[in-house]
Amino acid sequence: MPFEAAVEALAALLGDRLSRSEAERRLHGQNETWFPETPPDAVAWPISTEEVSKILAICHAYRMPVVAWGTGTSLEGHALAVKGGLSLDLGRMDKVLEVRPEDMLAVVQPGVTREALNADLRATGLFFPVDPGANASLGGMAATRASGTTTVRYGSMRDNVAALEVVLADGTVIRTGSGARKSAAGYDLTALMLGSEGTLGIITELTLRLHGQPEAVSSAVCAFESFEAAVETVQMTIQMGIPMARIEFVDEQVARMFNAANGTELPEKPHLMIEFHGSEQAVAEQSERFGEVVAEMGGADFAWATTTEDRNRLWKMRHGAYPACLAARPGCMGLVTDICVPISRLAEAVAETRADIAEAGLQGPILGHVGDGNFHAILLLDRDDAEELARAKTVAGRLAERALRLGGTVTGEHGVGLGKRGYMEAEHGVGWQVMGAIKTALDPLGILNPGKLIPGAETDA
Amino acid sequence: MPFEAAVEALAALLGDRLSRSEAERRLHGQNETWFPETPPDAVAWPISTEEVSKILAICHAYRMPVVAWGTGTSLEGHALAVKGGLSLDLGRMDKVLEVRPEDMLAVVQPGVTREALNADLRATGLFFPVDPGANASLGGMAATRASGTTTVRYGSMRDNVAALEVVLADGTVIRTGSGARKSAAGYDLTALMLGSEGTLGIITELTLRLHGQPEAVSSAVCAFESFEAAVETVQMTIQMGIPMARIEFVDEQVARMFNAANGTELPEKPHLMIEFHGSEQAVAEQSERFGEVVAEMGGADFAWATTTEDRNRLWKMRHGAYPACLAARPGCMGLVTDICVPISRLAEAVAETRADIAEAGLQGPILGHVGDGNFHAILLLDRDDAEELARAKTVAGRLAERALRLGGTVTGEHGVGLGKRGYMEAEHGVGWQVMGAIKTALDPLGILNPGKLIPGAETDA
Repeated sequence: MPFEAAVEALAALLGDRLSRSEAERRLHGQNETWFPETPPDAVAWPISTEEVSKILAICHAYRMPVVAWGTGTSLEGHALAVKGGLSLDLGRMDKVLEVRPEDMLAVVQPGVTREALNADLRATGLFFPVDPGANASLGGMAATRASGTTTVRYGSMRDNVAALEVVLADGTVIRTGSGARKSAAGYDLTALMLGSEGTLGIITELTLRLHGQPEAVSSAVCAFESFEAAVETVQMTIQMGIPMARIEFVDEQVARMFNAANGTELPEKPHLMIEFHGSEQAVAEQSERFGEVVAEMGGADFAWATTTEDRNRLWKMRHGAYPACLAARPGCMGLVTDICVPISRLAEAVAETRADIAEAGLQGPILGHVGDGNFHAILLLDRDDAEELARAKTVAGRLAERALRLGGTVTGEHGVGLGKRGYMEAEHGVGWQVMGAIKTALDPLGILNPGKLIPGAETDA
Repeated sequence: MPFEAAVEALAALLGDRLSRSEAERRLHGQNETWFPETPPDAVAWPISTEEVSKILAICHAYRMPVVAWGTGTSLEGHALAVKGGLSLDLGRMDKVLEVRPEDMLAVVQPGVTREALNADLRATGLFFPVDPGANASLGGMAATRASGTTTVRYGSMRDNVAALEVVLADGTVIRTGSGARKSAAGYDLTALMLGSEGTLGIITELTLRLHGQPEAVSSAVCAFESFEAAVETVQMTIQMGIPMARIEFVDEQVARMFNAANGTELPEKPHLMIEFHGSEQAVAEQSERFGEVVAEMGGADFAWATTTEDRNRLWKMRHGAYPACLAARPGCMGLVTDICVPISRLAEAVAETRADIAEAGLQGPILGHVGDGNFHAILLLDRDDAEELARAKTVAGRLAERALRLGGTVTGEHGVGLGKRGYMEAEHGVGWQVMGAIKTALDPLGILNPGKLIPGAETDA
């Protein structure tokens, strides 16, 4: 068995919180999308920073790869142990350690999920806004610089993490950032760790920025005759400075799949889903002004979700988009694209993508966080059809090229993982080598999530 | 002469845009505050990225230190060539290269000042919000992760730089970020460069996020009986979720110095200066709610600046606070502290600081961006009194300790430079060594702004 001595040392430290069982290894070798199953050599469940530090010291001594595992909901294969080694499952470090309402901060362990945190916060009048599709762990969301439907207003993980505790490759524990709202005290190590995907360190504690639950909330959904009209509505709304808390686009295919999954009766047309947050008066004014833009753009079937239940149903439907789309083709797997472009180029990016998908003969509903210029095509693929996967990869490749040609990025929020590593050089040029130099400086033995993100040994993906 | 061969190679490249004159060297050896004059060996004025690249290649070959120079308005001695070498004055790279209103972005060279950019933007309905006291260059503001009076609403340089072009130590040119509103494509090199103070690379181009000029603006100034009442007013306003665009505190001494400098008649009491941005209706509502808080906290002399002229006068007075304070003690120099603490600890931080300054027998008016928890004491010192400077340093040291004890940072916005380097280990612990490792990875010869920010050879400061 590979890494036998390391695994024995880990077992001595962790007892039954270290497993070599086939079942656990396979469970931690799975992923949400098309990447092949890749079981690690062992799985560990630490319960404290101190344990994570000791685990890394052992792995470092034996040069055993360490790949952090949150909820396994990555869409880019981030948590797959492509070079073998240890899957470090942080799911048992799931405590909300402190809520500081007066500073609008919460201190959490990495295994706390975004929904668990918000459930915990309910009585405080505060909430944590970043909401990727999955009920992901906050550690995983930080490691991948995740965002969601409210990023247009509240920002992504980049904007909502004040401080981190991180265990480095050799077990050294560092703290980055502070509880202050800003700082100019040297290199922004917090920002460096956010989006480093477990290649620079393991996040063991997060200090998160909270926001006041808005006094009033108003949500709506409305249909458009064309996706161009929907996108133009978004652009006009931004230009007018109407402060949206959420603005989501779904195309006619997604509308159909929503109906099938949720028993709704949305017209099978492109839709926008929008939300405003503020005082009663501000929200009323914003809703009215937005309604005028929609009317001007020929939007129809405009329905305000006036009760909390209706609103929750609306956003639950939106968060359930990925499984709803997968359900449209039973047994399929998804390849989800994730480009983000400047707002002015969004309409052409979506148009070209729709044409591409049609030409490739694929099924690919499109939806996205259009207020950020970020959209996803969910390519629905037959698991056993290698030729179809190849076609989908070609479409995804053209999407990435398109993103860069239009001045954007190949991944708005899903991260690099395995799926986007092949585009890093095209996106960053020599900057990718700089990332490699930083990686080497912090993890010279390359034990942290090897085969991902930075230049170096190729992966099988 | 030191670096003679390097200077000759630079002169061959730059002609009369390379100077060894005593006058230019002394001009680039000065600083805004108490650090001693430190002339570089030569001064260069590049006019293009290509030239900066060639200059760095030469300096790299000869191991000649390179220190970027913007407008020389740093309060921490950032731009002083403490190890000798070249002062790289980017003042002639002062073009606004592109304004993209539809994407709310502007592309500028590093020598453009914040006021020049906003003058250029006037017709577009957009503005760039970050406004440190000085009319600093945008390259310098990025390099020091600057912020200002509007950070409470629009964020600091961390939040308002979308992309950078950076020349690395050996002359390699990289581009970080993109025109997309967000990205999860690997390490956040943009964030790493912001606040790196010229120790990792020279910023030669910035893509900045712009904001829509608000439809309505409402500013006010009001006096309080105690600084505690003023700070509590800020805390309550934040708790109530009233979205402030600016909220500035000045103490009774600053009010007196404002009056002397501007011919105003502010009561000699602690004041808040506030501004709201939004639609007419939203601003009216916010102003009304804030007025209620102020009344509850016993605020008085509440005056709304209703005309654009009045507003401009108000904020010009605020931006002129530093010279106004210096003018209160003719011929003095300033030592400006810059701690930032969690909002909940702000009142005690200010109280302890006031007591400290009084006990040390120093003159130290206090003002700050209280919505961020950031405040400055401007210690007014006799240039020729070494004993007074020593007392001031002791007070500054206790302020730094206080910031860390209260969970904050030793520098909210002025940066590390020479003045805060001695506190880096206390603030970051082992994280400071990580900064050093990153520095070594990117600039192994250590030619970029040596003696600053990261661990290593000591400076004279």
